[in-house]
Formats: sequence, structure tokens, C-alpha cells
Amino acid sequence: MPVAEIIARRRSIRAYQPEAPVSDEQLHNLLEAALLAPSACNMRPCEFIVVRDRGKLDAIVQAHPYAGMLKTATLAIIVIGNTNIHNDISAGYLFQDCAAATENILLQAVSEGLGSCWCGVYPTEDKVAAISELFALPENLVPFNIIAIGVPAEADGSRGFYEEEKVRWE
Amino acid sequence: MPVAEIIARRRSIRAYQPEAPVSDEQLHNLLEAALLAPSACNMRPCEFIVVRDRGKLDAIVQAHPYAGMLKTATLAIIVIGNTNIHNDISAGYLFQDCAAATENILLQAVSEGLGSCWCGVYPTEDKVAAISELFALPENLVPFNIIAIGVPAEADGSRGFYEEEKVRWE
Repeated sequence: MPVAEIIARRRSIRAYQPEAPVSDEQLHNLLEAALLAPSACNMRPCEFIVVRDRGKLDAIVQAHPYAGMLKTATLAIIVIGNTNIHNDISAGYLFQDCAAATENILLQAVSEGLGSCWCGVYPTEDKVAAISELFALPENLVPFNIIAIGVPAEADGSRGFYEEEKVRWE
Repeated sequence: MPVAEIIARRRSIRAYQPEAPVSDEQLHNLLEAALLAPSACNMRPCEFIVVRDRGKLDAIVQAHPYAGMLKTATLAIIVIGNTNIHNDISAGYLFQDCAAATENILLQAVSEGLGSCWCGVYPTEDKVAAISELFALPENLVPFNIIAIGVPAEADGSRGFYEEEKVRWE
């Protein structure tokens, strides 16, 4: 599928087929896509927690007000920004790197026939604190977001569209 | 080309074929890809400045210490975060939205046979000030980055790779 079609089909999926399998190969492809994303000065400061344990997924639902779709999602990927990994130039760009890695996961998911939903964590302080506590994260590992992954139980198709008024020409 | 291959071929291109054409259709496809990216609460807060004027491209090179590849790039896309467009939930996520839109542009560029390079601007204050002044941006339009676009004069192929030690399993 051309990347333009992948981009056009991606949307936030909030209903999944419960307990539908996500294969190890699919999961590897998602993580590899994330780890091939660009990063400032090629510092590669992003890490990932794959959550397949049902008890931990339910605990995230309790800890995060907008992560209810994890009740039916097969798994979650938590994108982590490691604040220890930077140089003088890259330091301010950590969470942009995490966002690029996230977008790669969302697009690869479409290609795998999977759905996804990006649930923001950073920079909302109480969400960062709750997820950090749940996964016993040291201070240098900041939970950036939680990505629900599963087999969609609702239609895909982006809600996005081209808008000429958002483009200025020089 | 499958999205996994697109992701694997993307890399920062710093040498372009001077004055190689980028068609209106290619440019439209890049902007459409950006405008189909996810945004927090679907607020769609990203805008874009397309810079094709050679004088303005050269002025960016003068204003930004790491944008030297614009000397040979055909054009630049400046991704802008509009701080006026948010709700209570989305407010902190503006620049993550800009990063997702950026990644879509980078991947679509590969699909178009084009190269790209993400030059960070926000949150580096002097770069934000310099680009804002150059394009007479009001305070609510924050230049997030500058993306060089052109026909590559160097090989593509990501420098990224899968790293098992960056993944934790739960």
C-alpha cells in the first residue's frame, strides 16, 4: 500500500476486537519502524515498553483518563524519552524525537492491518507521575505517550484533509 | 513501496541536485500528508510556509546555523504551531502534533523520490526569534522546524536499526 494511502487510512481506533492476536513479527515491525525514525543529532533517545499483561493494561486504564480503549486493545506500547541521552544541540528535541517514532508506529500499524491510538502523557504532570509510578520508571525515563495496538473493531479512514488556508507560499 | 521500506530508506539528506524541479503535485502530496497527521483532540493546529524563493532560502541559511543544505535544496517547508488553536486537553501537545506532521512529510518525500532534512527550530529561542523575524510571524505562530526538500545528490538509506536493549517487555 503506498504511504499516501497508509497516511489516509490511519485514524485513532478506540474499539478493538478483544484478545485478537498481534503476532511477534507484527510487533517487531512496529518497534523497528519506531527505531528507524529520525532523532536530533541521531542521538536515538527513545525507548519502549511493550505491555501485553492484561493486569497492567487495566492498571493503565485506571491511571489515565483517556486510555479506555486499552480495555479491548491487545497490547500497548509506551514510548519513553531518555533524558540522559543527548548532546548540547539535541537536548531540547527529545520529545519531538518521541513523536516521530510514534508516528512511524501508527503508520506501520496500518500496514500490518492493525489499529492504534496515541494517548498523550507528557507533558501532563499527573499522567507522567501516574505512569512513571506504575512502571517504576527512574527519573530519566519519561513516559511520552501510550499507544494502544490491536485489531480494529471500527472503520479506519483518516479524518484529516488538505486545507489551502493553512499553507502560506513564499 | 511498502511503508516499512519507506521508513528504512528515509534519512536526512544534506546534498541536493541544485534547481532540480519539485512538481506542484509532489508538493501538494507532501502538504496533504502533513495535514492528515494526527493531532491532539483533532484540533489541527499545524500550518505550513512553503519557501521556494531563492532569496528567502538563502536568508534562512544565514539565520539558522544548521540549515546549510538549503543552499542546494529546491524548497523548504516551515512547520508552524498555532498556539491559538487548542482546547484545555490539547494545549500541551502542540509541538508533538507538529512533529507527527513533519514525519509524514519526510516519509511522503521518500515515496515521491525526494529527499528531506528536518532542521529543528523550536524550542531553541534564538532560532525561533530569527525565523519569526524573517517571516514576520505573529506571536501565536511558532516556527517549529524547517524541512529541506529536493532531489537527493547523495544516497538514501536509514542509519536507524532495531535495538532489543531499548525494549522492555511487560
